[in-house]
Amino acid sequence: MEKDKYIGVDIGGTTVKMAVLDRDGEMIHKWEIPTVTEESGNSIISDVALSLEHTLDELKIDKRTLHGIGVGAPGFIEQEEGYVYEAINIGWKDFGMGEALKQAAGLQVWADNDANIAALGENWLGAGHNCASMVAVTLGTGVGGGIIVNHKVINGTNGTGGEIGHITVKPGSPHYCNCGRYGCLETEASATAIARKAKERQLKNENGFLSSIKNPEAKDVFEGLKQDDEDCRLIVKDVTDQLGLALANLAVSINPEKIVIGGGVSKAGEQLIEPLKTAFRKYALPRVREVCDISIAELGNDAGVIGGAFLVKTKTENKQTGAQER
Amino acid sequence: MEKDKYIGVDIGGTTVKMAVLDRDGEMIHKWEIPTVTEESGNSIISDVALSLEHTLDELKIDKRTLHGIGVGAPGFIEQEEGYVYEAINIGWKDFGMGEALKQAAGLQVWADNDANIAALGENWLGAGHNCASMVAVTLGTGVGGGIIVNHKVINGTNGTGGEIGHITVKPGSPHYCNCGRYGCLETEASATAIARKAKERQLKNENGFLSSIKNPEAKDVFEGLKQDDEDCRLIVKDVTDQLGLALANLAVSINPEKIVIGGGVSKAGEQLIEPLKTAFRKYALPRVREVCDISIAELGNDAGVIGGAFLVKTKTENKQTGAQER
Repeated sequence: MEKDKYIGVDIGGTTVKMAVLDRDGEMIHKWEIPTVTEESGNSIISDVALSLEHTLDELKIDKRTLHGIGVGAPGFIEQEEGYVYEAINIGWKDFGMGEALKQAAGLQVWADNDANIAALGENWLGAGHNCASMVAVTLGTGVGGGIIVNHKVINGTNGTGGEIGHITVKPGSPHYCNCGRYGCLETEASATAIARKAKERQLKNENGFLSSIKNPEAKDVFEGLKQDDEDCRLIVKDVTDQLGLALANLAVSINPEKIVIGGGVSKAGEQLIEPLKTAFRKYALPRVREVCDISIAELGNDAGVIGGAFLVKTKTENKQTGAQER
Repeated sequence: MEKDKYIGVDIGGTTVKMAVLDRDGEMIHKWEIPTVTEESGNSIISDVALSLEHTLDELKIDKRTLHGIGVGAPGFIEQEEGYVYEAINIGWKDFGMGEALKQAAGLQVWADNDANIAALGENWLGAGHNCASMVAVTLGTGVGGGIIVNHKVINGTNGTGGEIGHITVKPGSPHYCNCGRYGCLETEASATAIARKAKERQLKNENGFLSSIKNPEAKDVFEGLKQDDEDCRLIVKDVTDQLGLALANLAVSINPEKIVIGGGVSKAGEQLIEPLKTAFRKYALPRVREVCDISIAELGNDAGVIGGAFLVKTKTENKQTGAQER
């Protein structure tokens, strides 16, 4: 029986998203189940396998037509064996997740960090358009990243590749990062950081746009920018300047074709992208910025399951037209 | 006739180095010829081809036993076709160098930037020890870099991958870089930058170690450090702090196994590596620094020809034991 389909699984702290895709990227079906994080998340894998079994039955899909499962989870994960060094939100540590899922589901499994998997999704069917090298940035509660070079995600020596939220942008900063250090990009450009900056501005200016909002969030700052508020303009300039510098410095190393910005903050669209492009142009080597486009991610919450399916595709297909060793 | 040898060619502003290596990395022969840069360097390729022809004759090596030629040159170069976008020192611009050499020598040709090729050399037979991912830094007149990920050099979208000398480390710095911008790593950590810092210190302190030296160079600063001179200590601390920050920020993206420091400044050995490691540890994410070793390059001037040969090896061998898609 010919194998022609892939399973993508995106394990988050609240839900597990799943999907079946065909080799052209057509989504045959997608669904989700709750993530049970109790008891160190030790029922998650059997929950996933059981739900997959039921759904394949309902869809009348023969398991032998599946190439395998691609899984994304938050944390540090080795790609080939799907070994999870640590996934704090889920409760896993030193867990042979790939092997467990392979046993439970009877399918081959590959895995990676959720941000890396989302990057693969955008690379396949989203804003990345199959380019050989790209950087995907997720601006949410934290700052995540996934880097693709020579058509492959950089998983790294111990699964820490693409952790661009922990680029030090402000040495000596007083702002503590969850990683145990200070001055990380995450403490300057995440939704959390933007909210903090809004509160700091509130204290300084009693008449600005922000003064009327009780607990201002990142979206309020972009709303204020729309209304031409000076405080909000300065916050966005500061955030995009630091993000633009970090991305320009990464781009001179990677020389990517594309930078894709996703996550909650990216809903600001052009209000974020325009000042970000200005900062990037200022700090990037001319040859590097000439070929590097910056745009908003296109797949939203589906990036993870699509990327999971694409990971399986890249691992099981040796050659594709127009792209070596995809 | 079985193909079992590779040619490495390293084109510099003064000499062209060449070598024949076998598949185990044994250097069968190495030699060099002057680089004739007159008339936009348009005789270089025929000089190389002619010298190669003569030398192979002398060595009684049948051309049919050669897999091809791997060439390094300073500038922006596309790897697959060996197309040179620009190589300022040599005088080339928009030059189909790979095709020209292929015609002249009757062999397959691959090419890359000299720093990328040197990184490949160190990766094969030097301090890189065949690791899957590493960063090679060249601290000389400028700052060059080569990044290897998943066993391949990052050539980039337009041959600008690994240009880490143009990471912006001091936004707003008054120090002009040859790239047309300010505050690049090259203006802070090259031999040229160290000499500039030494002159600045001389003007401030008439009694220090540096005051007796007419035109202090990088090596004088390390000599002064050996003699416990405070000015020299501060210069080395400043240089290694900025280099350590840039490398830590790169390492959190790449998650490499190894960082290898080469070029003239690397002759300082432990005097450079120790403070560099201290800075790197300060700025790098714990998981990243745990697996990343920093050491001095081992191949000296042979890195280029060895890397050229290795480029051919990686392009002509599909699989090797212990390393996929090398």
